[in-house]
Amino acid sequence: MNLDPTKMKDWEIAQAAEERMIPIDRLAADIGLRPEELIPMGRQLTKVDHRRVLERMPGAGSARYIDVTAITPTPLGEGKTTTTMGLVQGLGAIGKRPVGAIRQPSSGPTFNIKGSAAGGGLAQCIPLTPFSLGLTGDIDAMTNAHNLAMTALTARMQHEHNYDDARLARANLKRLDIDPGQVHWKWAIDFCAQALRNITIGQGGKMDGLEMDSGFQITVSSELMAILAVARDLKDLRERIAKIVLATDRNGRPVTTADLEVDGAMTAWMRNTLDPTLMQTVEGQPVFVHAGPFANIAIGQSSVLADRLGSRLGDYLVTESGFGADIGFEKFWNLKCRYSGLAPDAVVLVATIRALKMHGGGPKVKPGLPLDDVYKEENLELVERGCRNLAAHIETVKRSGVRPVVCLNGFHTDTAAEREVVRKVAEAHDAYFAVSEHWLRGGEGARELAEAVEAAAEEPGDFRFLYELETPLRERIELIARDIYGADGVTFEPLAEEKLARLENDPEARSMGTCMVKTHLSLSHDPELKGRPAGWTLPVRDILTYRGAGFLVPVAGTIKLLPGTGSNPAYRRIDVDPDTGKVEGLF
Amino acid sequence: MNLDPTKMKDWEIAQAAEERMIPIDRLAADIGLRPEELIPMGRQLTKVDHRRVLERMPGAGSARYIDVTAITPTPLGEGKTTTTMGLVQGLGAIGKRPVGAIRQPSSGPTFNIKGSAAGGGLAQCIPLTPFSLGLTGDIDAMTNAHNLAMTALTARMQHEHNYDDARLARANLKRLDIDPGQVHWKWAIDFCAQALRNITIGQGGKMDGLEMDSGFQITVSSELMAILAVARDLKDLRERIAKIVLATDRNGRPVTTADLEVDGAMTAWMRNTLDPTLMQTVEGQPVFVHAGPFANIAIGQSSVLADRLGSRLGDYLVTESGFGADIGFEKFWNLKCRYSGLAPDAVVLVATIRALKMHGGGPKVKPGLPLDDVYKEENLELVERGCRNLAAHIETVKRSGVRPVVCLNGFHTDTAAEREVVRKVAEAHDAYFAVSEHWLRGGEGARELAEAVEAAAEEPGDFRFLYELETPLRERIELIARDIYGADGVTFEPLAEEKLARLENDPEARSMGTCMVKTHLSLSHDPELKGRPAGWTLPVRDILTYRGAGFLVPVAGTIKLLPGTGSNPAYRRIDVDPDTGKVEGLF
Repeated sequence: MNLDPTKMKDWEIAQAAEERMIPIDRLAADIGLRPEELIPMGRQLTKVDHRRVLERMPGAGSARYIDVTAITPTPLGEGKTTTTMGLVQGLGAIGKRPVGAIRQPSSGPTFNIKGSAAGGGLAQCIPLTPFSLGLTGDIDAMTNAHNLAMTALTARMQHEHNYDDARLARANLKRLDIDPGQVHWKWAIDFCAQALRNITIGQGGKMDGLEMDSGFQITVSSELMAILAVARDLKDLRERIAKIVLATDRNGRPVTTADLEVDGAMTAWMRNTLDPTLMQTVEGQPVFVHAGPFANIAIGQSSVLADRLGSRLGDYLVTESGFGADIGFEKFWNLKCRYSGLAPDAVVLVATIRALKMHGGGPKVKPGLPLDDVYKEENLELVERGCRNLAAHIETVKRSGVRPVVCLNGFHTDTAAEREVVRKVAEAHDAYFAVSEHWLRGGEGARELAEAVEAAAEEPGDFRFLYELETPLRERIELIARDIYGADGVTFEPLAEEKLARLENDPEARSMGTCMVKTHLSLSHDPELKGRPAGWTLPVRDILTYRGAGFLVPVAGTIKLLPGTGSNPAYRRIDVDPDTGKVEGLF
Repeated sequence: MNLDPTKMKDWEIAQAAEERMIPIDRLAADIGLRPEELIPMGRQLTKVDHRRVLERMPGAGSARYIDVTAITPTPLGEGKTTTTMGLVQGLGAIGKRPVGAIRQPSSGPTFNIKGSAAGGGLAQCIPLTPFSLGLTGDIDAMTNAHNLAMTALTARMQHEHNYDDARLARANLKRLDIDPGQVHWKWAIDFCAQALRNITIGQGGKMDGLEMDSGFQITVSSELMAILAVARDLKDLRERIAKIVLATDRNGRPVTTADLEVDGAMTAWMRNTLDPTLMQTVEGQPVFVHAGPFANIAIGQSSVLADRLGSRLGDYLVTESGFGADIGFEKFWNLKCRYSGLAPDAVVLVATIRALKMHGGGPKVKPGLPLDDVYKEENLELVERGCRNLAAHIETVKRSGVRPVVCLNGFHTDTAAEREVVRKVAEAHDAYFAVSEHWLRGGEGARELAEAVEAAAEEPGDFRFLYELETPLRERIELIARDIYGADGVTFEPLAEEKLARLENDPEARSMGTCMVKTHLSLSHDPELKGRPAGWTLPVRDILTYRGAGFLVPVAGTIKLLPGTGSNPAYRRIDVDPDTGKVEGLF
């Protein structure tokens, strides 16, 4: 392509690439999909009917399965999606038939500071406009299903407060006696609307709801997203939705969506979300987009279903797991792979000189502020010291039985000597190593990475879980804290201890996965601690239970379910050309 | 069709009809649309590219233009959409090539008590499931655009509260100094979530927003819906969105979406909503679905764009206007037709024996409660007395220069003598009259109605507005109150007087339309007054200004922007069959 990312904005490159995009039905046919398996969504997109494809192609897929993860990132991100797209393009460049699988972005970050998360430069997923603006409606459907549950819950609480049992009985309702202080769900919105984080609802008269504390969370953090990411099929989705616990009654018993008789209607809203959307890289390789990016309550990565489809339609399936390997890869490994039955043939660990310098002691990196000069000039010492963080993540991946491919995502400010430092560290830890320049040069720039991935994927695998489901929860948490985060141990605060005791006696909890909540900005629970922190213990404050998703969620540190919009958000620069209808300014 | 509406639920009839539905691309081709003018949305739906069609077919459309309105309804509704579908089917039965145009329903009523609003019995718009569950995403896009504006507004208020001018300047922001007591917009949700009607937001710390009163409104009542219904094209949409006033600053000056630099991004969300969705009746006639049902702040009917498309693609275009003729038809007449430049060739006024009996003094009709026996047995006196309401609406339609077709929407409990009473009243008022049994018998049952409409549409028209835009606002309101509602006059409360005085000196206001807010359950402002109330004056409490829509909104009585969910809502009975994926229980 004659596109120069050093001179063009990402959306300008995307628009230019979209001019010669492969028609989506042709792209689908090229990977063996039949017309009746497509659900067209606009002129440029199609959903893929997961049921028809899986019925036609039962058994396991044959693609090599690759996960892209990263070292602990700066708050700017280290180009994991860009590298995922770059690897798909690079595999194309060396003659493979790759398929990508990434999560849909949240509108919150897209319209705030972080941008579209479609990759960047010459390694992007297109078309960018629908990708950034709701895609094929899955997140909207989820917002609706989520808020219908909250509507049902709050309306029921109002009716039970206003009416006696006889009046309730006339509507064929029995009193659920929900405790207003024990409502576990919040409302959902997919924007960074911090003013809705903590609110009081139900003000006014008795027909205006019951007055109580409430709040909103970003839709992609909904338990429904966690469910979508792991659901096997519509029946499984239906059953998981029915198990969601929205609140507790005054006797401490769970109140579910099924108790409110809203589970069927929620499933009706969610019915089409199970079908992943098919898109493409700027170089025309297929990419499935599915599920969402919030790696706390949900796994924060593309779905089991998208991976099951993709593994049947190409010779390489490349997916990514959010944040650093301590968060994203650990969930890919012990949650997603357990649900999908798939095992990775290779794992790519993305690093940047910028992030390594930060881990080596470089000045703070803050979104929206100019980068310190340290990050633009050669500094071998900072890079070398920062490689301790890289080493920790290499060890994590190796613990899963897979030898990682360290990918240095090349910036034009990198020096050859800096890159050499990273190569030595990677090789000293027995990892593959590749420098990749996909941002600058697209698939051609990712040949070295693609070849390293090919070599890694040929190695015989020995993939194994960090823990078995029989492992008691306390032990699981300690394993993750010690072996993955590098903590000396774990302390459980009283609330967490109380929940632990209760969960130890809960037979259902024993078969549930563990989905840790921790900052992604440090290996520890403290985002300020960079590099490879030592001599610390992980404080677990609480343990949340998501029965629909089937996740136990130990909470180490704060969990912000609704990010805030900054003072210079992206929406200021987004506009539509009224003559062409094209959207400008996305990034 | 071998479908019996007395034995089957609406959704069962819809499902059966969907089995033999015309493929949407064939239906589109049948009305002369070209493949490149279609934007497929799923397997069963397509949006129609308004720009391409209007560019190909400039000039005026040639279809006869028919509006369906009604007498003052009971809270159950009198089957206006059912009659609209019935008329389209009836026109098909007598050999015409009709096109329908109705509004998308709101999820609020669909999941609450009122149901899907797709018609009923053998006169329905299909496929019912997507129709009831978000269709092609227009309302979701609107919810997103609306809430992005609120996110921008509240984030800005927080930042201005926390930061000094120097810090704001670093983000290239100047202080807007928004008055927290003068925020005119609320947040949007498309469910009947009464607990969100009155809320306090921004609780917590200084990064959690500025604490203030706020609330939610149902999305279909958003100013954005008013804009969508009247927008000419993308440029017009863009310009109208930029003019929306979200709040007032501490000096009383308006704060617009453009001041917040969020107007472009809002338009980006709304860009695809301008293309109407093409559906069909259960008998295979084309139906455009566009815009929304809330006839207060918005016009509550399908859009100008859908009518402009439809009038080019058939020989009859049948649309409907919400609520009774005093609300819906008055807005169709003086707002929508003024924006579209179209004039109706015939107006159908739907009446039912049930509603006429209520207006004649029958007992209260309440949703969810069994109907009194009076409504099931012959009672000529109640019908006769109730016809005063019918007469008032006939006079309203005639005032627009059109001779109405009174359509008695037949119920199986009607007696011949009761129907004869209505016929006589209609004919005494020089209106056409037809009994229609489309609910029971589909298009065949609507032949009499279709023939009456054909005859009415052949009459030379004399369509004229009730007022010209030069008419001062006070006079316009008095004209509507006296000539349409039958009031003795209007009283303006102090707040309304103050706004009137201000608007009289506002040159922009003089070119804006008037969109009255009044209950639809009475010709007066008091929902309890049935029949044709006399000896009353209309109290105007406030006058709202919607600069984006270009509407002045005099408020007579309360305006409920967020309905409440009842104790026996529809979602209790909605479910998905996990084996077929079909949604059951919609109505």
